[in-house]
Amino acid sequence: MSTVQIPEALDSLAIEVPSWAYGNSGTRFKVFGTPGTPRTVQEKLQDAAKVNELTGLAPSVALHIPWDKVEDYAALREYAEGLGVKLGTINSNTFQDDVYKFGSLTHSDESVRRRAIEHHLECIDIMDATGSRDLKIWLADGTNYPGQDDIRARQDRLAESLSEIYARLGDEQRLVLEYKFFEPAFYHTDVPDWGTSYAQTLALGEKAFVCLDTGHHAPGTNIEFIVAQLLRLGKLGSFDFNSRFYADDDLIVGAADPFQLFRIMVEVVRGGGLEPNSDVALMLDQCHNLEEKIPGQIRSVLNVQEMTLRALLLDRAALAEAQRNHDVLAANAVFMDAFYTDVRPALAAWRQERGLPADPMAAYAASGYQKLINDARVGGTQAGWGA
Amino acid sequence: MSTVQIPEALDSLAIEVPSWAYGNSGTRFKVFGTPGTPRTVQEKLQDAAKVNELTGLAPSVALHIPWDKVEDYAALREYAEGLGVKLGTINSNTFQDDVYKFGSLTHSDESVRRRAIEHHLECIDIMDATGSRDLKIWLADGTNYPGQDDIRARQDRLAESLSEIYARLGDEQRLVLEYKFFEPAFYHTDVPDWGTSYAQTLALGEKAFVCLDTGHHAPGTNIEFIVAQLLRLGKLGSFDFNSRFYADDDLIVGAADPFQLFRIMVEVVRGGGLEPNSDVALMLDQCHNLEEKIPGQIRSVLNVQEMTLRALLLDRAALAEAQRNHDVLAANAVFMDAFYTDVRPALAAWRQERGLPADPMAAYAASGYQKLINDARVGGTQAGWGA
Amino acid sequence: MSTVQIPEALDSLAIEVPSWAYGNSGTRFKVFGTPGTPRTVQEKLQDAAKVNELTGLAPSVALHIPWDKVEDYAALREYAEGLGVKLGTINSNTFQDDVYKFGSLTHSDESVRRRAIEHHLECIDIMDATGSRDLKIWLADGTNYPGQDDIRARQDRLAESLSEIYARLGDEQRLVLEYKFFEPAFYHTDVPDWGTSYAQTLALGEKAFVCLDTGHHAPGTNIEFIVAQLLRLGKLGSFDFNSRFYADDDLIVGAADPFQLFRIMVEVVRGGGLEPNSDVALMLDQCHNLEEKIPGQIRSVLNVQEMTLRALLLDRAALAEAQRNHDVLAANAVFMDAFYTDVRPALAAWRQERGLPADPMAAYAASGYQKLINDARVGGTQAGWGA
Amino acid sequence: MSTVQIPEALDSLAIEVPSWAYGNSGTRFKVFGTPGTPRTVQEKLQDAAKVNELTGLAPSVALHIPWDKVEDYAALREYAEGLGVKLGTINSNTFQDDVYKFGSLTHSDESVRRRAIEHHLECIDIMDATGSRDLKIWLADGTNYPGQDDIRARQDRLAESLSEIYARLGDEQRLVLEYKFFEPAFYHTDVPDWGTSYAQTLALGEKAFVCLDTGHHAPGTNIEFIVAQLLRLGKLGSFDFNSRFYADDDLIVGAADPFQLFRIMVEVVRGGGLEPNSDVALMLDQCHNLEEKIPGQIRSVLNVQEMTLRALLLDRAALAEAQRNHDVLAANAVFMDAFYTDVRPALAAWRQERGLPADPMAAYAASGYQKLINDARVGGTQAGWGA
Repeated sequence: MSTVQIPEALDSLAIEVPSWAYGNSGTRFKVFGTPGTPRTVQEKLQDAAKVNELTGLAPSVALHIPWDKVEDYAALREYAEGLGVKLGTINSNTFQDDVYKFGSLTHSDESVRRRAIEHHLECIDIMDATGSRDLKIWLADGTNYPGQDDIRARQDRLAESLSEIYARLGDEQRLVLEYKFFEPAFYHTDVPDWGTSYAQTLALGEKAFVCLDTGHHAPGTNIEFIVAQLLRLGKLGSFDFNSRFYADDDLIVGAADPFQLFRIMVEVVRGGGLEPNSDVALMLDQCHNLEEKIPGQIRSVLNVQEMTLRALLLDRAALAEAQRNHDVLAANAVFMDAFYTDVRPALAAWRQERGLPADPMAAYAASGYQKLINDARVGGTQAGWGA
Repeated sequence: MSTVQIPEALDSLAIEVPSWAYGNSGTRFKVFGTPGTPRTVQEKLQDAAKVNELTGLAPSVALHIPWDKVEDYAALREYAEGLGVKLGTINSNTFQDDVYKFGSLTHSDESVRRRAIEHHLECIDIMDATGSRDLKIWLADGTNYPGQDDIRARQDRLAESLSEIYARLGDEQRLVLEYKFFEPAFYHTDVPDWGTSYAQTLALGEKAFVCLDTGHHAPGTNIEFIVAQLLRLGKLGSFDFNSRFYADDDLIVGAADPFQLFRIMVEVVRGGGLEPNSDVALMLDQCHNLEEKIPGQIRSVLNVQEMTLRALLLDRAALAEAQRNHDVLAANAVFMDAFYTDVRPALAAWRQERGLPADPMAAYAASGYQKLINDARVGGTQAGWGA
Repeated sequence: MSTVQIPEALDSLAIEVPSWAYGNSGTRFKVFGTPGTPRTVQEKLQDAAKVNELTGLAPSVALHIPWDKVEDYAALREYAEGLGVKLGTINSNTFQDDVYKFGSLTHSDESVRRRAIEHHLECIDIMDATGSRDLKIWLADGTNYPGQDDIRARQDRLAESLSEIYARLGDEQRLVLEYKFFEPAFYHTDVPDWGTSYAQTLALGEKAFVCLDTGHHAPGTNIEFIVAQLLRLGKLGSFDFNSRFYADDDLIVGAADPFQLFRIMVEVVRGGGLEPNSDVALMLDQCHNLEEKIPGQIRSVLNVQEMTLRALLLDRAALAEAQRNHDVLAANAVFMDAFYTDVRPALAAWRQERGLPADPMAAYAASGYQKLINDARVGGTQAGWGA
Repeated sequence: MSTVQIPEALDSLAIEVPSWAYGNSGTRFKVFGTPGTPRTVQEKLQDAAKVNELTGLAPSVALHIPWDKVEDYAALREYAEGLGVKLGTINSNTFQDDVYKFGSLTHSDESVRRRAIEHHLECIDIMDATGSRDLKIWLADGTNYPGQDDIRARQDRLAESLSEIYARLGDEQRLVLEYKFFEPAFYHTDVPDWGTSYAQTLALGEKAFVCLDTGHHAPGTNIEFIVAQLLRLGKLGSFDFNSRFYADDDLIVGAADPFQLFRIMVEVVRGGGLEPNSDVALMLDQCHNLEEKIPGQIRSVLNVQEMTLRALLLDRAALAEAQRNHDVLAANAVFMDAFYTDVRPALAAWRQERGLPADPMAAYAASGYQKLINDARVGGTQAGWGA
């Protein structure tokens, strides 16, 4: 174990954390609140900064508009930088206004589409102020019943709406279109698979990319294949990491199927996704419904780091040799050897070399931070998906 | 078409409607409200009575405790009977109190289990007052992460808790245990499949039955097989009808896969589930997130009626003959012939003979009832899953 | 019923039948043979011609190379035309030679790829002789274990191999690339989804299209969405129709989920797929493991015809009106009304007007053809997937 | 890592290997043969003995009747014992005779049921001669089309057939009934889930148990829950270990989802399944379609051993403490710590202490055995599923 050599490539690993992970979340049945939950975007940033402080892995924070709306984004940017983190991806929201009941960018009423487009243009204004590169669009658009709307016309309207938003992007800005198998729509979803996101972003141009949320696929889907394919096509813009046993469960990344996370990271490395000039942004998108939120985020970025290291440790020369010989068992053995390597001791040492706590989870528990916020954050409205 | 002869058995078809179908529902992303939504259980009963008035199919209404809690259940019963409907199954709720975050009847803390048991005993008290026969238990209990709790110990605690509740049942009362594949728990659910519900109710005794919700299965599950098996074992207590494309979508019954509904009703008929002395209660459990609620319920009971009639029209003698000959195509043809028969004109006539509107959907639209409640039900808090 | 008016568009409906449907098929556990099974491609054509004779729906027959290899394809073409049918799509086969154990067009050994490419060039030679328009490529290529081969390199090799095959196509010929979720590969498949087939055929050029086999998707996939999307993108080349409850079950089209077939045909009509100049070829790809083969094919083309007619009967003006009003229940009602219409009596009349038997299934049973071939086809080797 | 202490419980781990794993297998598309494949049951036993010799884990071999039929089972038993292995479970086969096309123990024709029953009685005769304890019944019985047969009547016939077989069992013999989600039947399967197997074996009596094949579930099924439940109910008779990404892929156990295998072994340990008096038999049931067979089996038993050790290393006291506190992250961390422990070095040392090769895979490669059998086993018919 002590022989694990950590490649330099791991140094550049950075995982964006979502502001909403620090707020309350739940299911349609119940949202359980917890003490210490942030009431404001500033408090969310404090928590995110704590995750970065203890892990060195989470230097930027994604915002969600309107949940994280403020008057002065330049001031928010300064506030974040004062905490040692940057503002990252701007996520739009077109699923919580009553007007979007039957769709947003795909809606058959021009006025509703207009409103949704304007919301995205506002998001780009915010990006200008925050210095964010990416506008991430996840659409809840879809229908619940066969015949409810015209699937194909919606696709055409989506293309039109997106092209207007795309035209507003600055030279260094990108549009990232997320796909999702289902939920909240239960019959058809307007961007249900990578093929649709690929076709739509291909039509937009080279500043448009696909966002792959690891929980947004049909049962049994080989996600690492999609990763490899999108990297090959130059269209993988970002990840939303989480894990799932059933649907879009939004569990901690790596919790449900650690081997799948390993296979995904192997393809990311294989396809150049960790290289300095890579187009790929790594983000979390999880819901800590039952577990504590800040340590939940710490656990998550550590999981990504551990799996990325295992992927980097893969003996690609030996693998290539076994593959060339069509020696299935030998190739699989090389592959599994990297997965089964216990990288935790080496990573603890690596952290200490960098002035980080060897065990960030223990360091958080010992930090007193949770008690501090539990005591301080009394009154007000806890942040959640609605605010 | 004119040759469709409606069997007498259809006369006794009765479908219980859930009080909560008339309130608002949605997803974790958004609950859209609509004008006219009831504020009280009495208003829910008014709406349910309207469904029964127009269809003759929905003579009883299931209540959900505590959503439908009142001071005086005897008065509520009278109120319902005044509207022409009965109070039906009492549904318990152990998923919305903070104390149930980690379970209810399965919780490792005795005090939480005690509270959950007491809630069920209270539900039986209510059943005594309302004259309800069935206590339906659906448990949200489960865990989100491997290791979170001891799966097996929870099963033992469930058995203990249920036995205490069971002991309180009156001679004519029943306990019906519903199973669900997943949600809101995302790793393990304590009653995830019919096998578990069967094993638990078998241990309880002959007043305990299984509730089959048609949306609570793994992808690809042959539901009509479970129907046939539970009828064979004498343990099918009730249905929660709805339909789904993905998870527990709670769409209108028959909307997603009408042929599946047909196959289910064929097994219900085959297994004696429509006979006068049958143990099987037919209920709806749906969420009208996007569509109008009252016509949504009318559509639903009509869908069950239409499919039941198709199942009754199945030429079982011809089917048995083809099956005996192992003539796969002939047997399937007999089966499909019943499914493809358009029973709607005959049903329209049948309704008129009974003083019901030929087209209950049109009759509702023409009734002015929706405008009436839209105008009347202003102010107050619209009912939903929380209230 | 008598009011069903059959649109002219139905007249042009033509469904290609696969030669292999008349041979034996089965599972890895067992292939059951049946009397009368063809021993030669000529006998397969006889059976296919019988299907066309009785239904008027199946004017062409797809061939599978090498299963249907002959010395003289011009003679085979004449033979077919003498029977009243044409030779249709040529299907290649790169999954039954030992050399393809680890792949064909994606194989890491240049010599294996060469052999697979040459096979396809030979198929195009055959197309020249048979007058076939389409070369259909379904690849079994994939791996069974993580690490077994380099997913991305295989994708690049696939692109190279396809481009060489594509270059050989005549002006009026097309390449149709089929995708499949899994089987026979159990970890990764090289063309697993429509996105991959779309990306690969887009790179090839405008004579390359996607083939959609209705049984080749992950559980829960909304297939009609893919149909609509591919039609929109101008890349839907052909269908392989069949149905399934679980995996690639290859059951009779419409048997497992008739409503899904209806929804698919609605999108085909919506997207112009039935218009005279359409790029879309409708084919069957089924396995009659247990049922009789010739009536199995008759049943299949009738199922497609019946559903196509229902799709054509959809009141699109009323649907558009309800959609415009976001009246979910009204839109769904218009949609379901078409589905629930019993089109069988009108189709029987329509057939008789055209000199076809009113009931092709009964006509086949009465024809004596099955006894004829049972008696005649004695000895020799029954055709199956291996020959 | 060097601190891994191996519990004594691991010493008693024994995994039964199936004779058919050493023969050829494949898919409906192709069975690829390999040099050295056994032609006889004796050669299969030689290969199995080699696996046991190198791992010390596989002391018994399951037979499949009629594939492994011999004249003299006492002699076969002696032959096996001479090789250092025992004859284990007897597996019946009612899916390859033409007469079973429409079912076996469930068939509507009494004569076919009789034949299938007699086959099982013969299997018990063989058990008497081989000294086998378990008769394992996996039924391919089912239907492909709705209406093809009477689902419920088949269930009743199954119960009757099984009871006759059960009655013939000796005092120390057991009947183990395997369930399977689907394949080769594609509409309904007569024993599709654990609930059915449980209900049927419960009716038979205390010598009847359920067999859980890890690949025989619907997508997303929580298998460790079923393990825990069956152990709780005292009805878990045996495992068929393998792994899968999609359907019944029969891949090497632990290859597709190693974490799932860990979770299963945790419940086995939790439920007493590794204790000396346990009712649970651990077996493999895999198909080495592409990889080499003997090292494929070695890899498999090692995978089970490694995961069992991880499960034994789980700090159950710490886990119970975290569970009691409802500390989700702490409980999960204890759980994952056992999973992420690299047990391989400790196991290598443990093997050497017992006179076994530290690396059985390398030892096999170095043994020359493969060349020996490649050279020796020339001519004859390679064993496969048909022989």
